[in-house]
Amino acid sequence: MRASQFPLFTSRETPADAEIVSHQLMLRAGLIEKIGAGLYTWQPLGLRVMRRVEQIVREEMDRIGAMEVLMPAVQPAELWEESGRWSLYGPELLRLTDRHERDFCIGPTHEEVITDYLRRELRSYRQLPLRYYQIQTKFRDEIRPRFGVMRAREFVMKDAYSFHLDQASLEATYADMHNAYTRIFERLGLHFRSVGADSGAIGGSVSEEFMVLADSGEDEIASCTACGYAANTELATSRPVAPTADTPLPAEERETPDVHTVAEQCAYLDISPMQVVKSVVVMADETPAVLFIAGDDELNLVKVAHALDAEDVRLAEPDEALAATGVPRGFIGPKGLPEGLTQRVDHRAAALVNFSSGAGRADWHWINLNWDRDLPLPPCADLRTAAAGEGCPCCDEGHLVIDRGIEVGHIFQLGTKYSESMDARVLDEDGHKQPLIMGCYGIGVSRVVAAAIEQNHDDQGIIWPAPLAPFDVAIVTIGADRSPDVAETAERLYSELRAAGYDPLLDDRDARPGVKFADIELIGIPHRLVVGARGLENGAVEYRDRTQPENEQLPVADLPQALGERMGSPASSRAG
Amino acid sequence: MRASQFPLFTSRETPADAEIVSHQLMLRAGLIEKIGAGLYTWQPLGLRVMRRVEQIVREEMDRIGAMEVLMPAVQPAELWEESGRWSLYGPELLRLTDRHERDFCIGPTHEEVITDYLRRELRSYRQLPLRYYQIQTKFRDEIRPRFGVMRAREFVMKDAYSFHLDQASLEATYADMHNAYTRIFERLGLHFRSVGADSGAIGGSVSEEFMVLADSGEDEIASCTACGYAANTELATSRPVAPTADTPLPAEERETPDVHTVAEQCAYLDISPMQVVKSVVVMADETPAVLFIAGDDELNLVKVAHALDAEDVRLAEPDEALAATGVPRGFIGPKGLPEGLTQRVDHRAAALVNFSSGAGRADWHWINLNWDRDLPLPPCADLRTAAAGEGCPCCDEGHLVIDRGIEVGHIFQLGTKYSESMDARVLDEDGHKQPLIMGCYGIGVSRVVAAAIEQNHDDQGIIWPAPLAPFDVAIVTIGADRSPDVAETAERLYSELRAAGYDPLLDDRDARPGVKFADIELIGIPHRLVVGARGLENGAVEYRDRTQPENEQLPVADLPQALGERMGSPASSRAG
Repeated sequence: MRASQFPLFTSRETPADAEIVSHQLMLRAGLIEKIGAGLYTWQPLGLRVMRRVEQIVREEMDRIGAMEVLMPAVQPAELWEESGRWSLYGPELLRLTDRHERDFCIGPTHEEVITDYLRRELRSYRQLPLRYYQIQTKFRDEIRPRFGVMRAREFVMKDAYSFHLDQASLEATYADMHNAYTRIFERLGLHFRSVGADSGAIGGSVSEEFMVLADSGEDEIASCTACGYAANTELATSRPVAPTADTPLPAEERETPDVHTVAEQCAYLDISPMQVVKSVVVMADETPAVLFIAGDDELNLVKVAHALDAEDVRLAEPDEALAATGVPRGFIGPKGLPEGLTQRVDHRAAALVNFSSGAGRADWHWINLNWDRDLPLPPCADLRTAAAGEGCPCCDEGHLVIDRGIEVGHIFQLGTKYSESMDARVLDEDGHKQPLIMGCYGIGVSRVVAAAIEQNHDDQGIIWPAPLAPFDVAIVTIGADRSPDVAETAERLYSELRAAGYDPLLDDRDARPGVKFADIELIGIPHRLVVGARGLENGAVEYRDRTQPENEQLPVADLPQALGERMGSPASSRAG
Repeated sequence: MRASQFPLFTSRETPADAEIVSHQLMLRAGLIEKIGAGLYTWQPLGLRVMRRVEQIVREEMDRIGAMEVLMPAVQPAELWEESGRWSLYGPELLRLTDRHERDFCIGPTHEEVITDYLRRELRSYRQLPLRYYQIQTKFRDEIRPRFGVMRAREFVMKDAYSFHLDQASLEATYADMHNAYTRIFERLGLHFRSVGADSGAIGGSVSEEFMVLADSGEDEIASCTACGYAANTELATSRPVAPTADTPLPAEERETPDVHTVAEQCAYLDISPMQVVKSVVVMADETPAVLFIAGDDELNLVKVAHALDAEDVRLAEPDEALAATGVPRGFIGPKGLPEGLTQRVDHRAAALVNFSSGAGRADWHWINLNWDRDLPLPPCADLRTAAAGEGCPCCDEGHLVIDRGIEVGHIFQLGTKYSESMDARVLDEDGHKQPLIMGCYGIGVSRVVAAAIEQNHDDQGIIWPAPLAPFDVAIVTIGADRSPDVAETAERLYSELRAAGYDPLLDDRDARPGVKFADIELIGIPHRLVVGARGLENGAVEYRDRTQPENEQLPVADLPQALGERMGSPASSRAG
């Protein structure tokens, strides 16, 4: 492609409303253009990158025998009513009515549609297992779309679904998908990690996320320094610490005026946070519950939801907490709470002896409380977020480190969540009707582009991993209008590189060299050749790797070979 | 692909609600699956065909330097309000509100979005011309979706847009697009014709449609037997006939009780329809108008809309006609109509002498009326549909023939319709702000698949043109379970064909030969090889071209060469 025929709508200014670097760079480099809140046009340059992602995803899905389909974006409400998600899914589901006042949604995901398809077309268990995928535009009506395509409302996803007669078959496909995802992110040239994850609103029991590692990531990943353990901190655990063997002391109530926080409590009573049991009131599906965790621990709402078997959990408002416990804020404790109020205690808090807590009335706290002796131990559960430095739950050697990541893939063992509710069954070998066992597998195709930039950029702009670059190499001419030799050499290089299977960008624009260099760095082309009259006098062109600080002079005569060594095989021949 | 791993969800039964053959065959062959009214899932087999269309379209767009983009499907209402189409576009525009109660639509077309993009990004007239295209899912809320993907609500389109500083540049791109469309439909192996067309709701002055010829087509095309003239009958014209030189006779009113139709009028007055001037009342943008055409002519509402410069024209209801003219139905005529009522006369009706018409009161008609002598001639216009056998309007030799066609492409010279209303301007060389001159260019990608079937099928099923076929060739095994030789030969053929670049389907299913043959014919694979024990004893496999009635025995030894002669180059090497 010639830059004179491929407008680079670049900009030097950082857009005011772009908070993260990938959003800023995607706008500045002219990859995307904002049309409305969370709605973007993929400009030619950006679409080239996304198509490269799509192509690798498609090849790896085809390789494991998944069949590509295309389901409608607009889905009838009836299917979502059957699965129960029409009422469960929140306002992120964009609902609409057609001219006949029938209800539809624009699908954020397609479990219902594909389950409906299979229940109507599947004739025999012998046709199983089946694996389908599609690459499609989806919609999620985010309350506050931001971060560009990282959290857009309209986005491109690869979603895949598998159908099985038994769990073993599901597990085999799940493993194939795990391997395919691993190959995809490897081929994309990204640093990533697969981690155990919460299944959330999609459902099912087992799931793993694929995270692109980046400091700006919204997710936290705990992983072991020694073994392969890695999990989203939503559900990561750590090695239990042996309880202290302190001698139980007599429990005492102490007056603690104006003490409201754990810090104040520790200072006033001269104890450490590890001697405190914090009480936190939450609303679980709008029913109050009280949770007890150690004073230096962080409550993990995803784990709370699992412990309480609730769809939706949030911290209680002050008036809700007061109504549920009858105790003013800061003085709630596990002793003397109203009967019938749901309570759970975290394992670590359950192991404390001689702990302090609110006394259940204003301005008073207990010290030296002990479970069982002074009050019954509520049901135990894992309620805390695992922290860096704690022991690995899977091995005896390692400890946890915490990284930040951007979720770009998520694979689920769904089980029969959809097939039971939608009555998708097949006759097994013995003539019994069995619900289909399902898996689902997603990759945020448009999000991968942003995640790659979060991971790979510098002050000058994007640094594309070669497999993602919109162009493999840029050829920049300097003074082509004054030197026929420059124009001719650049054209010859352009032809040779195309013939060798590369996708070069010939920057033949009538612009100052500084403008061209800045654009090429901003848009992140991995390799750059500068063809200028002065270099050609010495029979050389200037080469630079986008990741390296220094230029190299390459002799024109050896150029094809020298470039091949530096650039590797062209993308078109890189298929896995 | 192996049929054992690629479920062919075929059916022998004709679906009850499928009216046209392509819809029936697409359902029966398992290309699509209905999810709701006008909403379809493209099954793996169908998507393979659509992807082939997409690929050819993409290659030809790239070849003429159009740049691929991807605009959001969900579009803000504000843009449509700027262009004026938010109020003009009917209920086919699917409107919706997001969680913040803001208005959006799902785009049936993207003129507004791309015009908004260019007005924000374009910096200089030197960047022009620009050509963009996208291949995207669109939505049109048809009141009565039918004919499968031929008139679905959700469909896939290639839409392209071009931007220019002057008309000459628009015309050059329009010509490039015309040539690209011609290559696309040629490469797809379809019989088609490009015809002059009405620009309709998209706007602009010049437009052409690309029609796939098929008896079931909804459109009528008039074309000349001698020259290249071809036009949709919406706007086709024919050579004017010289007026008769009859001597004017005295006009007379005749009592004509119970005469309401032209046929009754002719019978009662003993005249021919060519001596009658019919009066038709229409509502043009809800204002009545009366049109006069010859008794044997058909009124053309598209031409009426042009003649009256109206957006929307329909026949008046009886009460509307009575209110507008004061005359009961069947007796309206051009003489004595209320003043101020809009009237137009077709050129052919204007050339009549001694004509008959309603007398403007119940049960009376005129005979021997003559324009100017008996009543003023209203403004003349082209209001009639050209008919088969009439002289060509462009040459002196040919006459018109009428074919039926399916519209699969439409190219428009839009001019400044959108750039004026949306203020998309650029500074020209002299520093003057000029509105961008635009063209737009569409191909109904999903519709092409259905149109190809309407044109290419028989009683057994689909007959794909080779470039569209989901598989190039089927290899059917007979008795592979009893003969290792059969299985082995089939596998070898399968590998050889794949190595040669073909996309074969190996029908290795455990099914009766009749079932396999019926499936392969139904899904329309162009070439079929049958590998059976009996044939192999003679060193032969059976070959059949889907379009031919007879089988051929081909020696296994010569197979690659013999097949190559019959099948042509593989699709992967067929690029233009």
